[in-house]
Amino acid sequence: MAERAALEELVKLQGERVRGLKQQKASAELIEEEVGKLLKLKAQLGPDESKQKFVLKTPKGTRDYSPRQMAVREKVFDVIIRCFKRHGAEVIDTPVFELKETLMGKYGEDSKLIYDLKDQGGELLSLRHDLTVPFARYLAMNKLTNIKRYHIAKVYRRDNPAMTRGRYREFYQCDFDIAGNFDPMIPDAECLKIMCEILSSLQIGDFLVKVNDRRILDGMFAICGVSDSKFRTICSSVDKLDKVSWEEVKNEAVLLQTPAQAGEEPLGVGSVAAGGRYDGLVGMFDPKGRKVPCVGLSIGVERIFSIVEQRLEALEEKVRTTETQVLVASAQKKLLEERLKLVSELWDAGIKAELLYKKNPKLLNQLQYCEEAGIPLVAIIGEQELKDGVIKLRSVTSREEVNVRREDLKTGQNGDFNFYYGYFIDYYWQKWPDTTPFSYKALGA
Amino acid sequence: MAERAALEELVKLQGERVRGLKQQKASAELIEEEVGKLLKLKAQLGPDESKQKFVLKTPKGTRDYSPRQMAVREKVFDVIIRCFKRHGAEVIDTPVFELKETLMGKYGEDSKLIYDLKDQGGELLSLRHDLTVPFARYLAMNKLTNIKRYHIAKVYRRDNPAMTRGRYREFYQCDFDIAGNFDPMIPDAECLKIMCEILSSLQIGDFLVKVNDRRILDGMFAICGVSDSKFRTICSSVDKLDKVSWEEVKNEAVLLQTPAQAGEEPLGVGSVAAGGRYDGLVGMFDPKGRKVPCVGLSIGVERIFSIVEQRLEALEEKVRTTETQVLVASAQKKLLEERLKLVSELWDAGIKAELLYKKNPKLLNQLQYCEEAGIPLVAIIGEQELKDGVIKLRSVTSREEVNVRREDLKTGQNGDFNFYYGYFIDYYWQKWPDTTPFSYKALGA
Repeated sequence: MAERAALEELVKLQGERVRGLKQQKASAELIEEEVGKLLKLKAQLGPDESKQKFVLKTPKGTRDYSPRQMAVREKVFDVIIRCFKRHGAEVIDTPVFELKETLMGKYGEDSKLIYDLKDQGGELLSLRHDLTVPFARYLAMNKLTNIKRYHIAKVYRRDNPAMTRGRYREFYQCDFDIAGNFDPMIPDAECLKIMCEILSSLQIGDFLVKVNDRRILDGMFAICGVSDSKFRTICSSVDKLDKVSWEEVKNEAVLLQTPAQAGEEPLGVGSVAAGGRYDGLVGMFDPKGRKVPCVGLSIGVERIFSIVEQRLEALEEKVRTTETQVLVASAQKKLLEERLKLVSELWDAGIKAELLYKKNPKLLNQLQYCEEAGIPLVAIIGEQELKDGVIKLRSVTSREEVNVRREDLKTGQNGDFNFYYGYFIDYYWQKWPDTTPFSYKALGA
Repeated sequence: MAERAALEELVKLQGERVRGLKQQKASAELIEEEVGKLLKLKAQLGPDESKQKFVLKTPKGTRDYSPRQMAVREKVFDVIIRCFKRHGAEVIDTPVFELKETLMGKYGEDSKLIYDLKDQGGELLSLRHDLTVPFARYLAMNKLTNIKRYHIAKVYRRDNPAMTRGRYREFYQCDFDIAGNFDPMIPDAECLKIMCEILSSLQIGDFLVKVNDRRILDGMFAICGVSDSKFRTICSSVDKLDKVSWEEVKNEAVLLQTPAQAGEEPLGVGSVAAGGRYDGLVGMFDPKGRKVPCVGLSIGVERIFSIVEQRLEALEEKVRTTETQVLVASAQKKLLEERLKLVSELWDAGIKAELLYKKNPKLLNQLQYCEEAGIPLVAIIGEQELKDGVIKLRSVTSREEVNVRREDLKTGQNGDFNFYYGYFIDYYWQKWPDTTPFSYKALGA
């Protein structure tokens, strides 16, 4: 550290020199030269570790996805997307932010949760709060009156996050919507069907779909003699029925007190999907108020990720985070170039392959790498294999070995490779625990 | 409009009444009741069309992706992801915003392009400018010293967009990086290989990879006698060599004048991928300055999207935006329920199917829908088919028809369906123009 201290002293002195020259109004060239020296000294000094007081974290309410979490996420998305496509949906995407005025007045109370961007001398922008308003804006802007689309993307709410229960400030929504003038209830029925198909495929347990229509509630309120002015308050009370007891809601509804804090969520999972009609929204964007009736659904995937992750945790199940089929290895030294050549051939034949980034790795380390990463096969080459024009394929778990003619790979058909891969893999899967909610065991494989 | 005018008058009067009551400090209950009436009147009135002066647009420098553009995007991503996976990469994701201090000091001049979020009484946040800095933050935060990962996500730069050339303020980056202490040049070589594999697979034409090392430039400058203080300026001049002529750069380098405006990009596509080493970045986040050497590459997909889209445009080629295999149809009336039953059976058997959302659609309209959406098959039912327990499968283009036993579908094996689907599809593809950069003709199919 003595060296560092000396450098720091030099930087200080040079800094004073530059300031002095500027005060003396020295020539621009001289100042430039001395600033150059200062910068060079600072570069030598590097960042000051003691001053590095970065808080190493993601913003409040957000998280990174690790490779393991991504494996779960991709599997869940795969189930959902396959269902949306099965139902003939197109797909669109919209920017993560919208003009602030696009979002204003669309969310009622929730508006205060919208993330605004700083006004940097341009337009006033806000991060999208959901995918429905951008969809309505998209329809009106492109004068579309008829589309069935899905959209999977992140949305943003400056809410108080409850991350352990899968609630974040940045979270995914998976929306499927049908826009257009159709005969009554047919698209609505398809939305319910889709919800059921997805929740069944995900195998996260039994579920109950509650179907409502606001007009039924309106009728009930009218019969109970609720005055129009109390309508909103009563609705907000009734809205709590899934969170607090009937008794509490009844008290609130009768007394019309300031709404109490919403209670804890009951045990169990809570809502994992929701949907409904929004026939008026597109008209709010159309200059002539032309309406496009819409119905749609949204899958609460963050909760589903949580459920699946917890289940995997409980099962202590292995999850592969890569799809590598084979590691190119050697027991002999000085074969880096040959390993690189072989792995290139495999890549060019469409085979998922890796090699260790070491000049002369030990065979044991190469096999260990396979065990850790769940790579089922090793392709071993040595002087003998090179001479014979073969590679030795070895199953990591069974230790079975077989020689494959190398030229079979070069055809790009990888027929032979896949034959052996299939043969070994069947054996390999038998070694994996058979706990198969949407075949976790194949996650990433 | 007379009705509207009357309503507007009522709203105005009621508004005055409410204001009056408030001034008179009338009872809260009375005010609430009158406000309720006002709100109800306003709801009846609906949005005032003449006042709707929304600008219907996306923020400057951003765009929506239409279903057609999404079909291209998915195909390009598919090529890239398959390559990344072939090379054994894991995948991670990070939040779209970071703590502002995480991004500060990492981008030099580019820092002024960072989007800040409004300070809403919480942390100071900025949208990510690239995926590299978040990756380095992720490594340091999780104390990872060894990972090969890819990350495909949107990044944000408040730049002056040139959208026609595929430059946006919100755009995708596709990054592949290898972090860890390895023997020299092995991971670097793999990055180059990946770049070549991807650009070849995308079939966007010939490309040239330029490999550089800053130390070569340093040496050249030293020999030319460039003083340290002039180093940055000279670098910025040399950096323009791909934009302006050698003569101009030479003048600039010799005279060290204020840098001239960068010229127009030359004809041709420009850079579609880039990469390199960044051995110091992770250390800037680690509290103890521990270094994790990294090397990586980034594919400029927005430009690639543009190229592919323009080419599709030029070819006037059809692009399917759904994957629907079959439309469930009927020529007879009153069969909505039967159509719904059949389409459900198809969905449950994993077949991609649609039906028109009409009670009694005309057969001609159903066939037309198939033509427009590129759906190759129609499954027709009528009284006779229902009685016989069959469905009539019809090829939209060849008009060939065949009866399939309905119970074969219910097995969920969809063997029979796929047999006929394959048979008809072969015929169908022959009708599509054969212009096949990564088989455009199969886009979305």
